[in-house]
Order: sequence, then C-alpha cells, then structure tokens
Amino acid sequence: MSNPAFFEETLPAITEGLARSAAELRFEDIDADSLAVAKQCLIDWFAVTLAGAVEPLTGYLLAEAAEEGGQPRATLFGAGAKGSLAQACLVNGAASHALDYDDVNLAMGGHPTAQVVAAVLAVAEDLGATGRALLTAFVAGYETECRIGSLVAPSHYQKGFHVTATVGSFGAAAGVGHLLGLDAEAMARAMGIAGTQAAGLKAQFGTMCKPLHAGKAAGNGLLAARLARRGFTSRLDILETSQGFADTQSDDFRDQHALRAPRRGFHVRENLFKYHAACYLTHSTIEILADLRDEGQITPDQIDNVILSVDPGHLKVCNIQEPGTGLEVKFSLRHTAAFALAGKDTASIGSYSDANALAPELVALRRKVAVAGDGGPSTLATARINLHDGQSLERSVDVGIPAEDVVAQGLKIDAKFRSLTVPLVGETVAAALLADLHQLEKLDDASQLLTHVAAWRAGAHI
Amino acid sequence: MSNPAFFEETLPAITEGLARSAAELRFEDIDADSLAVAKQCLIDWFAVTLAGAVEPLTGYLLAEAAEEGGQPRATLFGAGAKGSLAQACLVNGAASHALDYDDVNLAMGGHPTAQVVAAVLAVAEDLGATGRALLTAFVAGYETECRIGSLVAPSHYQKGFHVTATVGSFGAAAGVGHLLGLDAEAMARAMGIAGTQAAGLKAQFGTMCKPLHAGKAAGNGLLAARLARRGFTSRLDILETSQGFADTQSDDFRDQHALRAPRRGFHVRENLFKYHAACYLTHSTIEILADLRDEGQITPDQIDNVILSVDPGHLKVCNIQEPGTGLEVKFSLRHTAAFALAGKDTASIGSYSDANALAPELVALRRKVAVAGDGGPSTLATARINLHDGQSLERSVDVGIPAEDVVAQGLKIDAKFRSLTVPLVGETVAAALLADLHQLEKLDDASQLLTHVAAWRAGAHI
Repeated sequence: MSNPAFFEETLPAITEGLARSAAELRFEDIDADSLAVAKQCLIDWFAVTLAGAVEPLTGYLLAEAAEEGGQPRATLFGAGAKGSLAQACLVNGAASHALDYDDVNLAMGGHPTAQVVAAVLAVAEDLGATGRALLTAFVAGYETECRIGSLVAPSHYQKGFHVTATVGSFGAAAGVGHLLGLDAEAMARAMGIAGTQAAGLKAQFGTMCKPLHAGKAAGNGLLAARLARRGFTSRLDILETSQGFADTQSDDFRDQHALRAPRRGFHVRENLFKYHAACYLTHSTIEILADLRDEGQITPDQIDNVILSVDPGHLKVCNIQEPGTGLEVKFSLRHTAAFALAGKDTASIGSYSDANALAPELVALRRKVAVAGDGGPSTLATARINLHDGQSLERSVDVGIPAEDVVAQGLKIDAKFRSLTVPLVGETVAAALLADLHQLEKLDDASQLLTHVAAWRAGAHI
Repeated sequence: MSNPAFFEETLPAITEGLARSAAELRFEDIDADSLAVAKQCLIDWFAVTLAGAVEPLTGYLLAEAAEEGGQPRATLFGAGAKGSLAQACLVNGAASHALDYDDVNLAMGGHPTAQVVAAVLAVAEDLGATGRALLTAFVAGYETECRIGSLVAPSHYQKGFHVTATVGSFGAAAGVGHLLGLDAEAMARAMGIAGTQAAGLKAQFGTMCKPLHAGKAAGNGLLAARLARRGFTSRLDILETSQGFADTQSDDFRDQHALRAPRRGFHVRENLFKYHAACYLTHSTIEILADLRDEGQITPDQIDNVILSVDPGHLKVCNIQEPGTGLEVKFSLRHTAAFALAGKDTASIGSYSDANALAPELVALRRKVAVAGDGGPSTLATARINLHDGQSLERSVDVGIPAEDVVAQGLKIDAKFRSLTVPLVGETVAAALLADLHQLEKLDDASQLLTHVAAWRAGAHI
C-alpha cells in the first residue's frame, strides 16, 4: 500500500517536491500499520531517552542549559525542569542517541527517530498540540529524511558523513515545519536552512560527539523551521542545486534516480528497532553467535577461532579491534561477538562497561575473532565458529528485514520500554507513561506525555 | 618576522599541534603591527555589526532570541538587551556578516573576523576579561582558522563549502577556548567538537543563510569550547583522521604540506578590509572600472562593451548574471561593474537596494558586461572597456595585497567606522566607542566596549 502524498508524483524539483509532501501530509493519510509503528517509535524513544538522560554526556548538556537559562517551555529529560525549545532539542536529542540504542531505518541509512522526536515533541509540548498533530509531524519528518537519505546513499555515508546528523537535520526541520503549519514554499526554505547547517562526522563515532549529532540535528531543524516561518530567506532547491547538499556530499544524487518507496505504507512501517545496546551493524553477528552458542551449548574454551563476514562498509563503522572503554565496545564487532559467545546480556546497558571492555576472558575471546569485509550486502552477516575439535558452525542472519507482525513487535518494544524505564522512574510512572503513549492519537494535548517525567531528575541516579 | 608559537614547529599531529599553538599564545608574542591590525579588525567588526544589526535577518534572529529567553549575559547588538552567550554568538555573528562588508583573509580563504569576535566578545563580556585577553583570544582564533583554511584550500571552497562557516567554527572554538584557559588537550577536543558541527553551503550565497553561517560558526565554536572544558569527549585529530574534517571535505589535505606562514608576523597582519559593500571578489573589478571611468571621464553612453577577466573560481561565487535584489547585486560581477561605470557609491550600503538592482539604466549597463574566467589568480582581475569610438582601456588590479602602511590603513578603517556608525548611534557614542577600541589593550574590563551600544535598539531605525 503506497501513499500518494509521498510516492506517486514526479519531482523535477526535488526539494520543493519533498517540502510539499511533508507540508501536506494529513493524519488520515497514515495507514494503520504505519501508525502503529510510529507509536512504537515514540515508545522506544521515551525509553532510550530516559535511559540516556543519566549518561554523563547528557549531564554536560544539562549543565550548559542551566547556565544559559531560558524560558521554561519544554521538558529537559533528566533535569526535573523545563528549558527553551532549542535546549530541549539539544539535550533530549543527544540523550536519545546517547546509548546508541535507538532505532534505525535502512532507506534513510541512519537513526530516524532520535532527532525528529526531540524536535517535534518540544514544539508540541510548547504549543499544546494534539497527539494526532504530534504523530503526523513525526511521520512527515521521518518520511522526509528517509527519502533524502535514499537519494544521497550510499556515498554520503561512505564519505564519512553521519546520516543521523546531516539528513536528520532535514527530518527535524520537516517535522517541526509540519507542526508549525508551514506551507510548501516555507517548508522548502526550512529545508534549505536545515541543509546548510547539517553536519556530523563519522570519525566521531565512539565519542560523546556521536550522540551530540542527534541533538544538533534536532536543533538545526527547529531553527530552520522557525526562521522559515518568520520569513528568513533560503534557496528552495538546497538538495539538487550546484554546490548544494548533494553536490557537496554525495556522488549518487547526480542520477536523480526514483525516490525509494517502502514496500508497504510509509517508511516508518519499515523501522528497525534495536534489541542490543550496541551499534546496529553488530546486531546480525550478535544474533547469529548467541543462537549458535545456545543451540550447540558451546563454551569459550571449545572455540578455536571465529570468522565474521560483514558488508565492507561496516569496517569503517564498528570495527574497533581493541576497545578500551564500554563506549568503544559498542563499535567493536570483535568484542560484541565475544559478548555473545560468552553469554553476556547484550540487551543490558550495564554490559557495556569499561570493566567489560578490559576483562581478560573477554579480551582473550575477542582475539579469536577475525572480521572480513566480504559479506553483506548491508546488514546481512555470516559467522563461522571453528571449534578445536574440527567442527564448524556457520549461519547467516539479516536484522535489516522489517518485522512482519506489527503487534508482536509492539510487545517487544513494550518489554524494552519497561526494562529501561522502571529502574529509573518506577513501575507506576512507567506504566502511566506507556498507557498514554499507547493512546497517543487520542490525546487532546500531547504535553500530557511529559507530565509523567517532568519532575524526574537523572542526577539522583548518577 | 615569524613567530615560534605558530609557525616553526613540525606537526605530525596536525590538530594537536594547532590546538597547542592556540592554547599557548600569549599577548607578548604578538608583534606591534599584528596587534594594530587586530585592533583594526575589532573596529571594523563593531562598524559592520552595528550596521548589520538593522538588517531584517538580524531582526528575525533577535525575535527568536527574545522568544527563547535566557540569562542576560552578553549584549545582543540592536536588541537594547542582553541574551545568553549562545544567542549573542548567533545574533552578533550573523549581524557582522549581514552586509558582507566584513574583512577577508586569503590564507584562510574566507571572512576571518565575524564569527571569532562574535564568540570571544560574548565570553569576554560575560567574564569581564581584560582587553589584552580579548585581543589574544581573537588572534589565537584568527591564526587557527587561517592555518586550517590554508591546509584544506583550494578544494574545500571549490567543492561548495563556505569557509567562513566551516573553518570559522574552528576559529571561534580556538578563540573561546583561549579565553576559557583550555590546555592543549582540551583545545584539541574543542576543535574536534567544532569540526563535527562545521557546516555551511556556498549555494546559499545571496540568501540570509550566508550571514547565518557566521552566527552558527560562532555558536558552534562556543559550544565546542565550553563542552570541552566540561569534559565532553572527542577525537583529538579531527582534521587529519580518516573520515574527519579534511578527509570528507578537501582533496588537498592528504599532502599534509607545510602550514602556510604569513610573510610578516601573524596572519592577522595580512587581513584585508573591505571598502565596497559587496562580495570581496568583486572589489578588484570595481576599483579598476571606477578608476578608468574617473580618469577617462567616461559616460555610460560611450561604452560599447566591457570584458572582465577574473579567476575561474569567481564564477561560482559572484557571477549572478541578472540580479533581482540588492542582496543579489553583491554577488554580481556584472552589476557591481555597472555601479562602478555609472559612478554609484559602492561603499554605501544604501546603494545595494532592490531598486538599484532593477533600475533600467543599470540593467542596460550590466548587459554590456561579459565575465570570463580566464583571469586571476585569486583576486587579481583585469578589465577592458571597449568604447564606441574604437578606443580600448585596460587595467589589472589585485585587492588581495595586504597594506604596507598599517597606520594609513587604520585611518581608512576609522573613516569606515564613522560613516557606518554615526548615522545609527550618533557622533558622541561612536566617538566614545572608537576611543575605547583604540585603547583596547589597556582596558581592564573589555565589557566596557559594550556599554556604549548596550542600550541601542536597531528597531528604532527599521
């Protein structure tokens, strides 16, 4: 089921076409499954953002916001206080990506939800927008960034640009622009203002700057949409113009090939959730090795060596050979493989500690793991375990295939939500927030979501 | 006269070397001529920022800041009020570049002062730093961006990145980092955090986004330095690392050729001031044509055609063939040539009006002008006027040669300062501000500079 507002038109003017689609999206256009997954994205976002709010990097940003001051208009997660909309974008966007546990979309080629929700939620809270308006704005932003991501892939990411940061700035602008009611022309200006601010380097993976990128993208999008509404000028064709976004940062866009449409409904229907708290490109490997280990009851001392075959693009993303910190472990195929082989809980945030990065038995295990860039494409991975007894176990898995069963996926997301949030805000608050998220499209005022977490202070947990 | 802190060391680790040089610069290291030009940069900055504060784009940003709120810690030019440091960076940085009348440095390949002063002045005002501390921080930021600019030139700019925005983010970070007393390691992190935020597309030249870039660069640098001080993590090698700043945005850096040193003193000694209120790459042409016109007493009706020979790089910067607005005129070699031939005052901001973009006699004149990309290099331009009577007049000028006489240059800057500021703030305030700028290195508290303009509201002039 495709949808006309997004996929059937021909777009000689790419930016203006995308802007019009984003501006004109209506709640009624969104099919039931896409809406259900959109709500799951919100549930997942609240979970990873609350969990990310206790991270030191969020603490630094909260301290910065407190020193700046500002009208208290949008909840700063973990602060027990509100801040300006720009501060909410920066703090909450970074918090939601702090653990690298937020969701993924392969058409976009990045994390689609973190920066868009950070931005649209702040604006919705400030405006007292309805749950429907919030959801529609989120979907408008999400679709926009997936379309742009697919237009500049794969070279944009391969060159070293962090799609979540760069393309995410467009998504946040489109989402906020929708909430603010921008028309197509103003939306095209918003995309221009977002595109000229868009930045984020993959070299910063493994540092606090990676989460910062999501916060910056949210803030870039907010500023873009708000300035566009005021009348700030911009080109209307930032994507396709000479020396514009694609010209400077992609080798693919020159083909202006057809926009990639999702198989069903909206791109958000194909959202991929993370069930391991590490870089998404380690997940197929983790699932293979955990399954092989469980099925064969394999212990580390039986293992002679392990060979991972992954897409060559992974080698520049998550192939830290000898991680020394918990954060680096998240970007180490070898170490997350060691986790899976040792039976560590890869879903638990606590597993990604500095102690576990340096634990001798895990270091010994990871040194049995070799990573080859001869697999793929994309998230399809193959792993072979060679045992001392001459046996070999091999399997392929691709976590990049969207779930068929949206209801079953929702149960997994609810479980993830509870496991991350109950330890932080308690059973009662977590349940009340989840209930409101489940009925989000019925809320007259989406700011009701924030009432559950407005007073919660991350500091009590640090 | 070269200086050891900046130019004599060998730097296998480029980013860390630059960071160390910036962190360790002392006021005593700055030679007298470089210091004099640095003060001229400040004088010029106040002039163009006050004039830029009455532009509509600054009004939009001031409205945004007012809606956001924030601790009143740094003067927002034109607001008659203070805002947060981040707001001062955005507003004042954009205001200073609003007219494209701010200075240029060819080693950097962009506008060096706008974003660095916006950032360091806000921090100095907040801290009550001395005039010496402000000047030293400014020079540290200025030198850093000139060195980085020279390392990624020419392809960084040629690809479509706006150096003032991108490299300027590093300059602002280094300047603020110096004022905050960052050590070399923290400064390298600040440069990493700045580099991953750095953005700005040349496609936006001719829109309000170009000045916005300078404001964003100032804010990026502020956030980078402040987060680095708090302990925020980053790579220490953002310039040279794989998938870092240069790898993603320059083809030249791979050579890691020697850092370009200025002929005398610091790069700031070679600062080039603008005496025409249009894109710097139109200035050689303007000066040639105005001189030929005056010397030959040529009237427009005598002219058959005009041929401009400029560096081919100019064709992507300031070659709008048929400008329709005053802003577009600033990026039109043909139309600024028409101004010069018609005797329009190219120094006056008022000349760059929509009416003058559309005036039939000027449109007719610009249509006699052809632009060829066979000149250069850089700012060296040649123009030939062919008259109806068969006579031809030809001359070459290069405005890119720094002034020999620093004192004479200072008189021209003072005159520019008065001509821009007296109509806005009055003779008394302008004189008092200029006097304080002249003795800046003797001020115990640089925030004294702001007392002269703190109450001034641009709104009264719009």
